Amino acid sequence: MTITHATGYAIKDPKDYFNFELTKYELEPLEDNRVTVAVECCGVCGSDHHTISGGWGPWETKFVVTGHEVIGKVVEIGSKVTEFKIGQRVGVGAQVGSCGECKSCKGPNEQYCRQPVHGYNTLWYDNHEHQGGYSTHVRAQERFVFPIPDALESTDAASMLCGGLTVFSPLVRNGAGPGKKVGVVGLGGLGHYAVLFGNALGAEVTVFSRSDAKKEDALKMGAKRFIATSKGFEKDLQFEFDLIIVTASSSKLPLDELLSTLDVEKKLVFVGMPEEGLSNITSQTLSGNAAALASSHLGNKQEVEKMLKLAVEKNVKPWVNILPMKEAAKAIKAVEDNTVRYRSVLLQDINA
Amino acid sequence: MTITHATGYAIKDPKDYFNFELTKYELEPLEDNRVTVAVECCGVCGSDHHTISGGWGPWETKFVVTGHEVIGKVVEIGSKVTEFKIGQRVGVGAQVGSCGECKSCKGPNEQYCRQPVHGYNTLWYDNHEHQGGYSTHVRAQERFVFPIPDALESTDAASMLCGGLTVFSPLVRNGAGPGKKVGVVGLGGLGHYAVLFGNALGAEVTVFSRSDAKKEDALKMGAKRFIATSKGFEKDLQFEFDLIIVTASSSKLPLDELLSTLDVEKKLVFVGMPEEGLSNITSQTLSGNAAALASSHLGNKQEVEKMLKLAVEKNVKPWVNILPMKEAAKAIKAVEDNTVRYRSVLLQDINA
Repeated sequence: MTITHATGYAIKDPKDYFNFELTKYELEPLEDNRVTVAVECCGVCGSDHHTISGGWGPWETKFVVTGHEVIGKVVEIGSKVTEFKIGQRVGVGAQVGSCGECKSCKGPNEQYCRQPVHGYNTLWYDNHEHQGGYSTHVRAQERFVFPIPDALESTDAASMLCGGLTVFSPLVRNGAGPGKKVGVVGLGGLGHYAVLFGNALGAEVTVFSRSDAKKEDALKMGAKRFIATSKGFEKDLQFEFDLIIVTASSSKLPLDELLSTLDVEKKLVFVGMPEEGLSNITSQTLSGNAAALASSHLGNKQEVEKMLKLAVEKNVKPWVNILPMKEAAKAIKAVEDNTVRYRSVLLQDINA
Repeated sequence: MTITHATGYAIKDPKDYFNFELTKYELEPLEDNRVTVAVECCGVCGSDHHTISGGWGPWETKFVVTGHEVIGKVVEIGSKVTEFKIGQRVGVGAQVGSCGECKSCKGPNEQYCRQPVHGYNTLWYDNHEHQGGYSTHVRAQERFVFPIPDALESTDAASMLCGGLTVFSPLVRNGAGPGKKVGVVGLGGLGHYAVLFGNALGAEVTVFSRSDAKKEDALKMGAKRFIATSKGFEKDLQFEFDLIIVTASSSKLPLDELLSTLDVEKKLVFVGMPEEGLSNITSQTLSGNAAALASSHLGNKQEVEKMLKLAVEKNVKPWVNILPMKEAAKAIKAVEDNTVRYRSVLLQDINA
């Protein structure tokens, strides 16, 4: 018998975004290429806060159930699904569908599909609303469901599927590895993954942060160097880095100074998503080393698999706080206050 | 007998930057790896205006003789110079020296040397002042002197050495060629070269400009399409371009909209040099297609040679206005008023 509804912790009004209400809602159709996953746990991402508070603009759906770092069990498969079996432990990240037809989808760069279906607050191609993983069930196209290696704890794997992947993809696409110097700007959920995975890939990681407050944590995670970005920090670092990943979600970063520390024709990849535009960039700085200010969005399925394999091989352990799902508001407040060290994961507690 | 002095049209005060005064000054030493070139003609670059007017900041030299698109004859060679002979026609561009030791110089990316010596308003490593080509003579390291193919007119080749190279290098480094779509933003000196060389390389070139005023010129130069950047122009162009070269020297461009027209992980290369910082960029746009905002500076010697060879093979003819060198102020005024169509070249007229 097909599952028709899910129950989730929903926000009904962006002005009241700590007020999660347990809500039952209709699930989108299963379709022949989708999988239904019963949620076991779900990570809490900065995007959840930006979305429910309206910071990224008006909602696409009537209410929002956030959560796009899901681990759970397969409970239904569409008729053409071949990769998964009922009962299998899987993950679902921040994208659940793509058109499958565009150049990006064939890339494989399905994360840059021209018409992506995101993890929540989004409409399918038939206009059915899709909600996320602070809930009992999510549905996703098979391509956006990932097998989870047995050696990984669910609560460790969950936030890798957005937080981890968001930094892992630009790390591997830009050659992070032995002999390469990688700068990581900001040490939050994404930043801590950039240090862990940068280190696991064999690169030499330097963390940039506003103050020394997180120095000890950064070094424990595997960073070789920690630089507080006080005035003039860039002077001794010209042409130093092969890649910089900016994970701070701020529009007030010293971007020009950071760009000047890149070697020739290297990238600063901005994965933070501040609500305002970027500034503090001059073409003079960019031209001195042909630096590029770039961004990146998630990663493809091959990169998810590579990341999870590396996490097993190198024993990558994220720093996570585990809470029952009913404490979602507490987790969101910690994102807002920037006090998470370094990712929250919500455990299923809905009796539906 | 060694040449000790040059005579050039000098600006003495950035507040009085149309007042070119014929001035005799000491040349830097020849050294064993430098070449002295007797100037035959010299292109007029936007940089000349930015520099003499103080727009790029205070001068490094006591006065400034601009000009870094020089064609002339070799009249002296240092004792270790092997590439050139007395009497040979050569060119000198916007860089005359590099350290030869840093990673960039060994790249070969000598244009990104950590301690470059620019074409004028610059000091050599021994602090001798270097001045440019609105003059009788310039000196440059052998590496920054280029043989000019017989088939090219001097007045055509001159402005290729900065204006042409500045767009040619990012075109070839980013794969412009058959089957690739290249956008060129702004149709001035640099933009016109981007169209000519983009077309000569076999790419399909689209010109973006604020109004339709230059449409006819753009199509004559070889552009396949011309788009006036009125509101909403980007909507039908998502994921369209493999490369965009921005040649407009303005900080008020619709960068976010332009970036959104790039295919996945492609670059917008900004080669204009506005005096203010860049803005109008959001990380949300960059992340949708993993676009990169990059820049570029000149090109290496191999690229100069490739460019001049292509110019001969494909009969690339720049659109130039030829004036006697004493009319430098008129040429600079045309740069300021944005009325050059599309590059001025000054012919030697100094009897020194």
